[in-house]
Amino acid sequence: METQALDSFAKKYKQLLDVELRNLIEELNAPAIIKESMIYSLEGGGKRIRPLLLFATLNAFGIDPRNGLQVAAAIEMIHTYSLIHDDLPSMDNDDFRRGKPTNHKVFGDAIATLAGDALLTYSFEVIGRIPTETASSDTKLSLIVEMAQAAGAEGMVGGQVADMEGENKTLTLEELEYIHIHKTGKLLRFSVIAGAILAGAHKTQLENLSLFAHHLGLAFQIQDDILDLTGNQQILGKPVGSDTANHKSTYPQLLSLEGAKAALQQQIHQAKDKLIKTGLEIHLLLELTDLVATRNH
Amino acid sequence: METQALDSFAKKYKQLLDVELRNLIEELNAPAIIKESMIYSLEGGGKRIRPLLLFATLNAFGIDPRNGLQVAAAIEMIHTYSLIHDDLPSMDNDDFRRGKPTNHKVFGDAIATLAGDALLTYSFEVIGRIPTETASSDTKLSLIVEMAQAAGAEGMVGGQVADMEGENKTLTLEELEYIHIHKTGKLLRFSVIAGAILAGAHKTQLENLSLFAHHLGLAFQIQDDILDLTGNQQILGKPVGSDTANHKSTYPQLLSLEGAKAALQQQIHQAKDKLIKTGLEIHLLLELTDLVATRNH
Repeated sequence: METQALDSFAKKYKQLLDVELRNLIEELNAPAIIKESMIYSLEGGGKRIRPLLLFATLNAFGIDPRNGLQVAAAIEMIHTYSLIHDDLPSMDNDDFRRGKPTNHKVFGDAIATLAGDALLTYSFEVIGRIPTETASSDTKLSLIVEMAQAAGAEGMVGGQVADMEGENKTLTLEELEYIHIHKTGKLLRFSVIAGAILAGAHKTQLENLSLFAHHLGLAFQIQDDILDLTGNQQILGKPVGSDTANHKSTYPQLLSLEGAKAALQQQIHQAKDKLIKTGLEIHLLLELTDLVATRNH
Repeated sequence: METQALDSFAKKYKQLLDVELRNLIEELNAPAIIKESMIYSLEGGGKRIRPLLLFATLNAFGIDPRNGLQVAAAIEMIHTYSLIHDDLPSMDNDDFRRGKPTNHKVFGDAIATLAGDALLTYSFEVIGRIPTETASSDTKLSLIVEMAQAAGAEGMVGGQVADMEGENKTLTLEELEYIHIHKTGKLLRFSVIAGAILAGAHKTQLENLSLFAHHLGLAFQIQDDILDLTGNQQILGKPVGSDTANHKSTYPQLLSLEGAKAALQQQIHQAKDKLIKTGLEIHLLLELTDLVATRNH
C-alpha cells in the first residue's frame, strides 16, 4: 500500500522534473553542443533521490510539490555537474555512468568541463528566477546561500578533496564520515532543508529535518559501500568491487560487512526517529528512507 | 592629473579587495589544499580590471565604492575560476599565467578543477550574504541572476565553447565578435551593470552603461589581439604571437593591423559617447577606458 503511494508520487514528480529540466536547457540561448552535453547528463537515468526528498518534504508540510520544481531542477543540475567533473580523466577517470558512456567520452574533456560549469552556474539563476508567488526574495536568498554552502568548498567540493586525499590510505571511521557527510551528505541535506525553507518551517522542524537528512545521508553511503561489495553488476550499472580495486576505504572494510549492516540499521533508525519528531505528515519520507536502506542500485 | 586620480583610486580599492578576497577564503571551513589553490590563483597578480570597473561605476553615482567590495570579490572569483579551467590540459593547456605556473601545474589537474568549481560556487554565496544595509534582497537577487547569465552558457561559458569550435577555422568578423562579446564581454558588462544595480540606476542610465561596457569589452579584446602581435613578451607575461601559433582568428588578421587599430579607436569613441550620455561623474570611467586602449599588458 505505502510503497504504491511512493511509487506513483515518484513517477508523477520525476516526469514533471524531466519536463522542467528539458525546458530550462532548451530555453538557453547558447551553442547547441553545450546544451546537448548538459541534457545528455541530466537525462542520464538517475534515481532523482534528491528531488524526491525535496518533493516528499513539501508533501509532509501539506504544500504542493510543484512549488519545488525549480529548486529540484537546480539541485539535480548541481548533482549532475559534480558527476560530470568527477568522471573526468583527471579525477576518477570513469568511462561509464549508469551504463552509459560518461559525458567526456561522448563530448570530449573540454566540453564536459564546460557543461559542468554551465550547470553549476545555471542552478543559481534558476533559483534566483523563481516567481515571487512561489518564494519570497528572502526565501530565494536563503536557498541560494544554503545551496552554495552545501555544494562548495565547505560541502560537496570539500568532501571530494578529502576523498582524493584519502585515496590509498586506511582511514579512520571519523575521516570516512567526514568525506561522506561532505561529499554526498550536504547536498542530500539541502534537498530536505530546501523543502523546509520553501514551506516556512519553524526552527525545531528545521533542526529535526536537518538531523534526519544527516542520518539518511550516512545510511545512503553505507548502503553504497555494501552494494559495491555484494551488489549485482547489471542492476548497479557499474562494476562490483571497484572500491576495493581503487583502494578506497569503506564501511564494510572498517566495520566488517555485518558491522556495516548494523550501522546502516542504526542510521535508518535515527533518521526515522528525527522524522517522527517533526510532527509532520511523513509517510512518503519514511518510505524513501526504507528505499535508501533496501535499494539494490 | 587625471591618471593620478585613477592610479590612487585603483591602488586603494585593489588593496581593499585583496584583503576582502583573502578573508573570504580564510573563513572557509574546508581542507587546506583547496583553500591554498583558490588563493594561489586569486592572488595571481591580475589587473583587476573588472573590480575597478565596478568601483569606478559606483564612484560615478557618488556611492562609496566600499559598498561594492563583496560583488567585486564575487566577480574576481568567477574570472579566476574561468582562467583556472581554461588553462587545464584538456582546454588551452597553458603552463604559465601572468608569469607564474598555472594552478594545475602547482596543485594538479584534479584540485585545479575543484578549486575552479569552489570559486564559482562561492561567488554566489558571497553576493547572497551581502548585508541588507548595503543591498536589499531584491538587489542581491538581480545581481545573482545577472551574474549567472554573464558567466554561464549564455555568457562566458558559451563564448568559450564558440571559441573552441572556431579553432583552426577562419572566422567571419561576426563570428569573432560573438566569441568576444560572450567570452570576455559579458562579465566586463556585468562589472559595470552590477555597480549600476547597487546604485539603483534608472533605465536610461542602465542602457547607456550597458552599451558603454559592450564597446569597452570589444576594445579590450581588440587591444588584446594587437598586443599578441606587437607586445613585449616580458611585459605581457606570455609569449607574443601565440594567437598565430594556435591558429586563432584575430582582429588584425581579419582587418589588418591598421584596420584593427582603427576599430579599437572606433570602439573607444563609442564607449566614451555612451558614458557621457549617462550624465554621471565619469572621470574615472573615462580614464579606465583610455587605459584599456593604451595598456601594454
